Amino acid sequence: MTLDPVLARIDTDLPHATERLLELLRIPSISTDPAYKNDCQTAADWLVADLQSIGFEASKRPTPGHPMVVAHTGGEGPHILFYGHYDVQPVDPLELWNHDPFDPQVEDTPNGKVIRGRGTADDKGQLMTFIEACRAWKTVHGTLPMNISMFFEGEEESSSPSLIPFMKANKEELTADIALISDTSLYDENTPSIMTQLRGMLGEELTITGPNRDLHSGMYGGIAMNPARVLARIIAALHDENGRITVPGFYDDVPELSNERAAAWDDLKFDDQAFLGAVGLSEPAGEKGRRPLEMIWSRPTCEVNGMWSGYTAEGFKTVLPSEASAKISFRLVGKQDPLKIRASFRKMVQAMLPADCTVNFKDHGANGASVMTTSHPAFNQARKALSDEWPNAAAFTGGGGSIPIAGHFKDIFNMDTMLIGFGKDDDGLHSPNEKFDLVCFHKGIRSWARILDAMTA
Amino acid sequence: MTLDPVLARIDTDLPHATERLLELLRIPSISTDPAYKNDCQTAADWLVADLQSIGFEASKRPTPGHPMVVAHTGGEGPHILFYGHYDVQPVDPLELWNHDPFDPQVEDTPNGKVIRGRGTADDKGQLMTFIEACRAWKTVHGTLPMNISMFFEGEEESSSPSLIPFMKANKEELTADIALISDTSLYDENTPSIMTQLRGMLGEELTITGPNRDLHSGMYGGIAMNPARVLARIIAALHDENGRITVPGFYDDVPELSNERAAAWDDLKFDDQAFLGAVGLSEPAGEKGRRPLEMIWSRPTCEVNGMWSGYTAEGFKTVLPSEASAKISFRLVGKQDPLKIRASFRKMVQAMLPADCTVNFKDHGANGASVMTTSHPAFNQARKALSDEWPNAAAFTGGGGSIPIAGHFKDIFNMDTMLIGFGKDDDGLHSPNEKFDLVCFHKGIRSWARILDAMTA
Repeated sequence: MTLDPVLARIDTDLPHATERLLELLRIPSISTDPAYKNDCQTAADWLVADLQSIGFEASKRPTPGHPMVVAHTGGEGPHILFYGHYDVQPVDPLELWNHDPFDPQVEDTPNGKVIRGRGTADDKGQLMTFIEACRAWKTVHGTLPMNISMFFEGEEESSSPSLIPFMKANKEELTADIALISDTSLYDENTPSIMTQLRGMLGEELTITGPNRDLHSGMYGGIAMNPARVLARIIAALHDENGRITVPGFYDDVPELSNERAAAWDDLKFDDQAFLGAVGLSEPAGEKGRRPLEMIWSRPTCEVNGMWSGYTAEGFKTVLPSEASAKISFRLVGKQDPLKIRASFRKMVQAMLPADCTVNFKDHGANGASVMTTSHPAFNQARKALSDEWPNAAAFTGGGGSIPIAGHFKDIFNMDTMLIGFGKDDDGLHSPNEKFDLVCFHKGIRSWARILDAMTA
Repeated sequence: MTLDPVLARIDTDLPHATERLLELLRIPSISTDPAYKNDCQTAADWLVADLQSIGFEASKRPTPGHPMVVAHTGGEGPHILFYGHYDVQPVDPLELWNHDPFDPQVEDTPNGKVIRGRGTADDKGQLMTFIEACRAWKTVHGTLPMNISMFFEGEEESSSPSLIPFMKANKEELTADIALISDTSLYDENTPSIMTQLRGMLGEELTITGPNRDLHSGMYGGIAMNPARVLARIIAALHDENGRITVPGFYDDVPELSNERAAAWDDLKFDDQAFLGAVGLSEPAGEKGRRPLEMIWSRPTCEVNGMWSGYTAEGFKTVLPSEASAKISFRLVGKQDPLKIRASFRKMVQAMLPADCTVNFKDHGANGASVMTTSHPAFNQARKALSDEWPNAAAFTGGGGSIPIAGHFKDIFNMDTMLIGFGKDDDGLHSPNEKFDLVCFHKGIRSWARILDAMTA
């Protein structure tokens, strides 16, 4: 057997694997904030050195933004490309963390040990599951198991501006038989998942300007246009009373769920009360008449991610603000065209502006939805391998988030992607106190060892 | 003549008077921000020392918040109480200032010299007009002109939490025949004004909470309640399509403008195009069918002064926020009851909350409108004195801002107030680059000397 000693090695090496992950987590590689530019370089350097230490030819590749990390084993046999991202989300509101987000800790909780800190689940902890599986294999067998390439970016949390140019410029080097990504979640703690559809995303920022400076609401209140009121009206108008989005043409390319897929999802017996209850909610708040799983996996959305105007600090200031801004994202499904929706959204906003107001838009990325083809044999090999590791059989699921690179792999490299992740719904991605369960880290490493074994058998 | 040498002294002493004002302006006495607590003490100490230097018995009086300054001359004759405030507004957005707001400068502009810095017009520069008039009188005549008390507070820009308790506790000491306040504007650069009606203000802060933490909009978007959307809907619903405020009962105690007052205001030939044009606007945006002067002097308003939710820094974060907040102020007129309106507003917000949302309110002050009685002889004495100093005769005007103390003087001390200010509409109160025209400072000092003379004649 090639697999069993690798699994045994993973089990005994877990404390060291955890230490290595903590080291990577201590680097505050927040890609969206220019203040952390050097930290992104440091995280890339750390990965290059770690991959070299286990036999990869690894290098840091410059881009106009944060660098890429690319590594290869070369050799015969099937060629896989593993993708991950070393950048992380910002940490505010900092005061809600139970400790420094970049001083990660292994904590005991009523649900077992967790690794807590920014980037634990999204995505440093997950990308390390794959690296640790390779390390264990190399330690036990002296070689890496197959022709493996790795590709890590540092701009996933900031719209990946360098990604497509880099992929196009390095198409031959990066194209493999299939791509693997570990940046998603288990269906539940006992059920691994291979995600076969993901929503796309359109990010927009708009700033509405009224008066050319902040005014005193005593002197001008009642006669001067207030852009905060205008912004509120626009945001309020983006949904109708049934929760449907009102941007003209928005639903043109949204497919209805097939009966087959609907039945498969019903079989998952999604517990929306538990899902919502975990975050203090009780009622699905999306489009009326839709299944809860549809709301998060196969229906498009429009959400306010940020909104600000006027005086927002302590106390009170009777200012009539000059500007009001919002960051708004649309999650997209089916064949919705992000650029067509962007144009329609901007036209709708323009049409709602009263006299004396102007609007400025800022583009924060646009990616269509991804729907995987599952015909490559790796899909069934992985499903079998995952089912051997976890209590329940693996499921083909949908996902509400956006992993645009899966679409790019198909469009640019004509390569299918398997999205296999070990996160849990309560990991707090993008939130304070993000964590990754130690058991997910451990079984995640074991899962990849099993998948590598299944693909080389 | 007692007046002419005083006016001459004011003219020759102007450079020193300006230096003294700059000194006071350098103290960053922002009352709403606890970080500036010591600076408020320093500003009060500065005033006490300055008043003592010109013969006042002056002292700093502690309160649970920032201190009061009280000063007296004692003596025979009519007793007046001059009120001002030494605290100032916050300075953000700091990057829009042309220099440090607390390093005030005298600048040449196409419209003449201005003193630029936070607090120049609101209210340090204005309160110093009265002190400088007293100083010149004392220098020339060796005594102060009449029985004068001064009363300066340091919490005017932060809802005056200590004011009413202090007034009640020191009622006998502070009650005079009439109060004078210099915290308003000229009607225009040639026309002084005595303001006879002022709007009241109700300040409210609300925070709507949906999920118990910030969520990932990929994982929860479409199924979880977004409090930013709820807040936008509430704000959008506060006005109808005619610009009327929809809070139930809001207009119950709003009087229609009398024909006589309407005619007097029409005589002022208010140029709303110029007023709005100065801040980049062109159309009165208040209630349809109302005169522009009504919109700012005699109609109530509802304005968003601040609004925030989710991620507001650079870049993009696909967060579904846990909370959304707004600071909202209502300007009140006639006999509108602030407490009744607060209750109605809160009830309306509660009624608009969807399932899974809660709201928390914070009280930022509540004061009714002030309508002065003008029967005290000082009103006509002051009107005559002002008309002698300025090109045009003085007008009785209305004001859109709130100077709640005028109402308190009436309610607690049964004392009328003359609101005589020397600001201009383009002073940028509460805004970046606040300024006070040097000519307004100079003629303001001269105006008070004339008024003191007229009242002692």
